[in-house]
Parts: sequence; C-alpha cells; structure tokens
Amino acid sequence: MTKTAAIIGGGVIGGGWAARFALNGWNARVFDPDRQAARKIGEVMANARRSLPGLTDVALPAEGAITFHDSIHEAVEGAAWIQESVPERLDIKHKTFGAIQQACDPAAVIGSSTSGFKPSELQQGAARPEQIMVAHPFNPVYLLPLVELVPGNGIDGPMVDRAKEILTGLGMYPLHLKKEIDAHVADRFLEAVWREALWLVKDGIATTEEIDNAIRYGFGIRWAQMGLFETYRVAGGEAGMKHFMAQFGPCLQWPWTKLTDVPEFTEELVDLIAGQSDAQSGAHSIRELERIRDNNLVTMMRGLKAQDWGAGALLNAQEKAMRSATALGARAADLPADAPVLTARRTVPLDWTDYNGHMTESRYLHAFADATDRFMEIIGCDAAYIASGGSYFTAETHIRHLDEVHAGAVIEIRTRVMEGAGKKMHLFHEMTEGDRLLATGEHFLLHVSLETRKPSAPSAGIEAALRRFAEAHAALPAPDGAGRHIGAPR
Amino acid sequence: MTKTAAIIGGGVIGGGWAARFALNGWNARVFDPDRQAARKIGEVMANARRSLPGLTDVALPAEGAITFHDSIHEAVEGAAWIQESVPERLDIKHKTFGAIQQACDPAAVIGSSTSGFKPSELQQGAARPEQIMVAHPFNPVYLLPLVELVPGNGIDGPMVDRAKEILTGLGMYPLHLKKEIDAHVADRFLEAVWREALWLVKDGIATTEEIDNAIRYGFGIRWAQMGLFETYRVAGGEAGMKHFMAQFGPCLQWPWTKLTDVPEFTEELVDLIAGQSDAQSGAHSIRELERIRDNNLVTMMRGLKAQDWGAGALLNAQEKAMRSATALGARAADLPADAPVLTARRTVPLDWTDYNGHMTESRYLHAFADATDRFMEIIGCDAAYIASGGSYFTAETHIRHLDEVHAGAVIEIRTRVMEGAGKKMHLFHEMTEGDRLLATGEHFLLHVSLETRKPSAPSAGIEAALRRFAEAHAALPAPDGAGRHIGAPR
Repeated sequence: MTKTAAIIGGGVIGGGWAARFALNGWNARVFDPDRQAARKIGEVMANARRSLPGLTDVALPAEGAITFHDSIHEAVEGAAWIQESVPERLDIKHKTFGAIQQACDPAAVIGSSTSGFKPSELQQGAARPEQIMVAHPFNPVYLLPLVELVPGNGIDGPMVDRAKEILTGLGMYPLHLKKEIDAHVADRFLEAVWREALWLVKDGIATTEEIDNAIRYGFGIRWAQMGLFETYRVAGGEAGMKHFMAQFGPCLQWPWTKLTDVPEFTEELVDLIAGQSDAQSGAHSIRELERIRDNNLVTMMRGLKAQDWGAGALLNAQEKAMRSATALGARAADLPADAPVLTARRTVPLDWTDYNGHMTESRYLHAFADATDRFMEIIGCDAAYIASGGSYFTAETHIRHLDEVHAGAVIEIRTRVMEGAGKKMHLFHEMTEGDRLLATGEHFLLHVSLETRKPSAPSAGIEAALRRFAEAHAALPAPDGAGRHIGAPR
Repeated sequence: MTKTAAIIGGGVIGGGWAARFALNGWNARVFDPDRQAARKIGEVMANARRSLPGLTDVALPAEGAITFHDSIHEAVEGAAWIQESVPERLDIKHKTFGAIQQACDPAAVIGSSTSGFKPSELQQGAARPEQIMVAHPFNPVYLLPLVELVPGNGIDGPMVDRAKEILTGLGMYPLHLKKEIDAHVADRFLEAVWREALWLVKDGIATTEEIDNAIRYGFGIRWAQMGLFETYRVAGGEAGMKHFMAQFGPCLQWPWTKLTDVPEFTEELVDLIAGQSDAQSGAHSIRELERIRDNNLVTMMRGLKAQDWGAGALLNAQEKAMRSATALGARAADLPADAPVLTARRTVPLDWTDYNGHMTESRYLHAFADATDRFMEIIGCDAAYIASGGSYFTAETHIRHLDEVHAGAVIEIRTRVMEGAGKKMHLFHEMTEGDRLLATGEHFLLHVSLETRKPSAPSAGIEAALRRFAEAHAALPAPDGAGRHIGAPR
C-alpha cells in the first residue's frame, strides 16, 4: 500500500521533502498557504527528478503523487509522517503543531525541519509532546542524506526506531542525537564558519570567491568523504590521533583564537577523543585510510573534472596546457599519415579500477571513446565544429580484451582509419602499455547533424583530412582482430 | 631542461611537495636531518604515484629524481623553488632561511609551508626578505590543489607572478592573499570548526564519528564543489544573496553565538558580500547554479558509491535493500528460463551523460557490464564465489548503439545465453527504454582462476545453472544483430 507523508510548509526545504518522499514511492500531501507553493514545489520536483533516481543502480519504486490541500487537517489525516517546515518562529511552530495534532494519527511521526530550536521548545504546550521531534535536513533535501534526528525528552524507543526506519528507507541518514542543544550539531559548524567568513570579508582579507576557493580546493573536498576527525587521524600519520592532538593542541592558544572560549586541553579530553576515534576508524591502519582517502579524492576530483567545475575545472586547465605542449595537441596536417596516429597517452586513474586495482571493462571503451574524440579533433571535428551542428556518432563497437592493466600504468592508443569516406568513419584502436597489447577497439561511426540526429555529410575539410589517413593507412598490413565477430574462431 | 626544487624538511608536508614536484617532472632535492626521511618520503611518493598521474587524461612528463642531501647548501644550490616545511617555531624557521639564503639563487622563490605565521614574521632578519613568502599547502599536498600564497610586504610583482606560474604548472591553485593575517584564510575556518568540535565532544553532545557523519553526509559534500557563499547563494533561491543574508543575519544573535564576537550586520557589509557574490557567480542564474550543484553532488556521491565510502556507502546500503525487495534480488532457481532474464532496471544517472544530457558511449558498456555481473550472480558466481577464487572475465564485446537515451530515463536490460558450457559464457543483452530498443551488447566471457588469471572450469553448480538458461534460450528465435562484425551489411 502506498504510504502518505504530509508536508506542512512548502518552501525549498518542504519542497525537497515532498520530492524525496514522492520519488521514493510515497504520496505527499502539501499544505502551504502561499499561492506560489505548487509552482515552487514543481520546480524543486523537476530538479529532484533529474538527479535523485539515478543515484542508485536500481530503479526507485513508481513515483507517488504530490497533492495540494487547503487545510492542515486534510493534509495530515492518515499520514504516517508529517514534516513541519514553516518559518523559524516558535509561536508559528506551536500553532502549527496544534492544528496538526487535532487531526493526525497519534502514531505518526511529526518531524520538524527547524535548524535552531530544541525539541523541548517545540514540544511546549503540545497535546502529545512525545510525537514531536526534530528532523533537520540539509539542502538539497532530495539529494543530501543527512537528517539530524533529535527526539527530545519523553519520546519512547519504538517511535524513534520507526522514524529512523522511515528516513533510512528514503535513502537518508538519521543522525540520532541523544542530547538536545541549540542548533543541533551541523549548524553549529556552519555558524562558526559563517562568522569567520563575515570577518574576513569585512576586514578585506578575502572576497567571497577567494573564500569559496579556499574551501573547495582544500578542506572542503577532504571533508566530503571523511569529515573532520578521520581526516586529522590520517594527518597525524603513524603516530595516531594522540600525536595529532599534541601537535594541534597548542595552536588553540595562538593569537587568532584569543577572542574565543576554548575548552581546556586536559588529558581526559585527549583520551576521550582518541578513544572515540579508535572506535570509529581503528579497523583501518593509517596507510589504509590514506589510500581510501586518496581513492575518494581522485574519484571526486575526476567526477568534478567531467563536470568542468571546482577542482575538476582546474584539472582541465592544467590538461589543456599539457596537451598543447605535446603531439597530443597537433592537427592533421602536422601529423604523418604513414603510421597509426597516437590518440592517447594517459595514466590509468584510480577511479577506473576495480577493488583489485585492474582497469574495469567499461573504462576500456571510455579510453577508446576519448581516443576517437581526439582523432575527430585531429581531422577538424573539434569543439567549434561540433558547436556549429555536426559530429560523429558511434553506431557499432567491437572490443577485444587481451590483457589486464593496473591503475598507475601509462597506456597509449594508436588509431588506424579502416574506412573514411562520405558519412562513414571506421576506426581501429590499439591500446598498449609499453610493448604489451592490452585491447583493440573497432568502431563504426556516422557523421550526423546534431539538429536532426540523422546522418549527414561532414565538411569538405574533415572529409579530406579523413581521406588522407584512410588512403595512407590502407597501405599498412591489416591489423590482427579487425572484422571479428563474437564467437569467431581465433 | 629539468628544473630543480629544494625541499627543506621532509615530513608529510615536505614529502607531499617532493612528490608533487617530482611527478610533474622536476628534480626534488630533499634536506631533512631525520634518518627516517628517505623511508617516509618513499611512502608518500608511493601514495602519490598511484593517485596523482591519473588525475588528468594526458600523461604527466617523465618523473624527476628525488635525491637526499646532507646540507641545506647542497640542496638549494641552483634550485628555482625552495620549499621550507620545518617545525612551526619561528626561531627554527629564521635559522633555516639564513642557511638557505647563504647558498640559494637570489631569483629563486622561497616558499614556507607555515600554517600560522605571517610573511612579515618569517622575513624578520632575513638577508633578502623579498624572496620569502608563505606558500601554505593542504594535505595530501600531491592531490589537493590549494596553496595559500601570501607574499607579504616588499615582494615585487614579477616574483609573485613567477611563484604563481610555477604552482599552476604543478596543477595547484595559488590563492594569492593581498593582506597578511594570522593563520591565513583556510586554517581560520578549520580552527573555528575544530574548536566547536572539541566542545561538542567534551559536552557529550556527539562522538567523533557522529560529527564526521554530520559533516560528510551534509555540508561537507556541498562545500567540496561550491564552498560557502556560492552554496548560500543557491540556498537563497530566486530572491538572491541579499535575501539569504536577511534570513541568516538574525541567527547570529541566537544563543549559541553569544560567546563570540560577531561583526555587526550593517548595510555596508550586506552590500559588500552581495556585490562580491554577484561578481563571483552572477554569470549563472540560480536555476543554473542549482543544476550545476546537483550534477556535482550526483557525480561525487556516485563516485563515492563506487568506492563504497561515505555518502556512497549509504547509497549501496539503500540499493541492497531495494534489490532484495524485487526480482533483481532473485536466484537462478526462482527465475523462469523460457525468456530473456531481467538483469537491470535502473535510471540513467546524471554522471553518465554528456553536456547534452545523452548517455555517453562508454556508459552503455558500463550498464551491460553491470547486467553481466547481475547474471553471474544469478547463476551463483556471486561475491562469495568470487572471494573463493573464481570469476568470469570478458574477452570480447560487441555493442550496437541503436538509439539515444537521456538522464532520468528508466532503462531495462534483458539477457540471453547464446552459449554456456565449460569455461565459456556467451551473452546477448538488449537495453530498452519502454518499447524502444536502445542498444545490444554481445559478450564472450571465460571462467578464470583469479589466482593464475588463466581459464578454468566453473563450479558444477554454476555450470548447471548456466546450462539450464543456455538450453532454454536456444529455443528462442535468434536475436537481431547477434554475430555481427563491424562493417557487416545490415
């Protein structure tokens, strides 16, 4: 049976909750007096639909319905989860809980998106305080897993367990805080950083852009995978967390912290932190953690490279400079046609390998496809030409996996033109590491109009450049394995 | 000509610098009185070699040499860059600069890895203060691009430009700070967060693990791509940065900030920040920034999923639960063999698409390879079997790209066994979106011993399960396109 969530308050946060529930197969009933609520939630939902369902490698259940309701009563009736995301004023929240509890199932969870209030404050004057808890999400709610779950006093175990189970089922991570505190945990950090950032901008030390770069090119990408303590555990090296704290401890007395209240660095505090850190990360040695960290950093940086953003945009700029300094930046006329063309010289990256460190199957095609792109660029089918509306699409691919290769190996790809005339381009790539032939990739491509997505003739310049290679390569001995079909005898 | 860098102090930071220089083709001369320096730097270098060179899609230049020297004089002579990473004590640093400047090229850059001292402090008493600047990197130095470059007073433009050019050539991002300040910029944030974290642990609000999770499942992954201000600009929504600050401003008066010194939220400060944010991000609308952010988050989260870490490990846990609730969790005996087997039902994720939103070439093979893995699991070649030492390796692949598909589309793959006997497994996958056939993938695999990496017989159970499908599927009409070779007539 489809479950129902009630979304009380439909801004960016409420809309994110609605999207998260609906895309996980729940019906979401929205109450928001704002006449723009349906439009705004529609926009959040459009963003969520394009990003959330592909996160997992299994399709989500069929989407639930998002409906809009004129009263809180109508929205909450029969709902198993009620999420309050109204403005951050305690009087408004109390009034909202009053209306919710008049009509809702006493067994339903009432979660509040509050970023600042403690559950005990929210529960004041409630008919059933034990039903109300903080469930503080992070924007974008449809993508980020964190929910700070603060049940407050008087909430029994089964209710909290049900809340955690529902949030986990939505792909979220309920961080169950056992003690209530103003602003919970994450926002205390955000607050501390925001405060510092305001000073830096105000004092003219750095601009907003410089501050963002200081974060995203450095500790931000580190924190994305290990957070603060595990990162420092690794930084402490073989000597471990205690050693790290011995180093870092005295810094707290340095000038820039004089204005603030710092806990005393007692042996008890050091032991407490070192002990918790052991419990958290002690299953891995520092060397293992370093490699895990590096795998994660490489993976994220290369992901951002594909998006041409942040640390990934820096890599693209570096690569462009490196390319123009090598033969990999040359154009057709500068390249001899009497031999296969060098179309790639690259190192197998960590994010291309399986848990054994071998390059995974689909990355062979990734490397061949990049080599095809490079060959296209050589014959003049470059970014400017593609922007003008023409390109080549791959229609057919044949790969022979001949040998394995590890992360860190430098591989090269050399490309022959088997046929190149009119719309057709038939390429044969050979991938090597030193003398070892690792794989061959045979590809049939058609030139297409990017507008009609149908085959079309390439420019005269491209056709001539392609023909030059096709004619010269036809004189070379036929490559081993070309024209094979699956199951053909060797 | 190979350029030379001198690395004075060879701990984790100095070692990271040595690795960054050497892997970018510089010779690195190390001075460190620690007898363990060569071993320690060797370990950093091993980590760097496996992770840095693959970051770009073009191979780095040939590796430079790392050599160890008995004196600062010998190390710095003729070096174009000298990097000081000795302990954070001003007297030690002054003594080190004295020795460096006795022997080094006056045109060389002397960078200090100090995280706390201002350049004016470092320059005190130096023979040529104008040569010394802060160049503060972040661990791991071989991967993270950020370097805070603080030239201090009296350093002329050309020297700073040369420093920036060298750092950029190493794939780093020099953040040139025009005013000196204790702890520069990034460490002020780290300090603020560290301080807050100590309180939270000390007061028993959260453990180190809970704090790390609060960071990496929420704002940490957000900051990895946009930092603080751009993230908030997006959060402010259509109303923009000023609106966001109007909302967030009052929070600074909330209880948890009472102990600290907060800048007054004047109109001037609001205008300053809003103006800088416009200059930084104004080229993109909020809607565009939202999509860029979501593309980045999806890409990083899916990258972490492949590493089974952080937010990606959460996705794997969610997926496992979803899988076991569908036919995609079933075993061979529970599946009818009289039709192709459903081996994938997934949504095309954002990180699988090109800038036009179409699924890229190599991801077709990625999806087919996952479907092959799923089929292997169905016939009993699952994680436990693989751990016992046997698996199937793909020897040959043939793909027909028949139609395009966008991010967000739900695709299915159905799999037929063309041959399945002894070591051989010949599969034919059909990928569809609804009624549209998008691609076919034909694959020839061999069962191998993971120890010898040579063909070997599968277990009797796997052979029987495979044979059952092979025999039943042989009765189905031959699929269109099977057995094709590239260039065969259609």
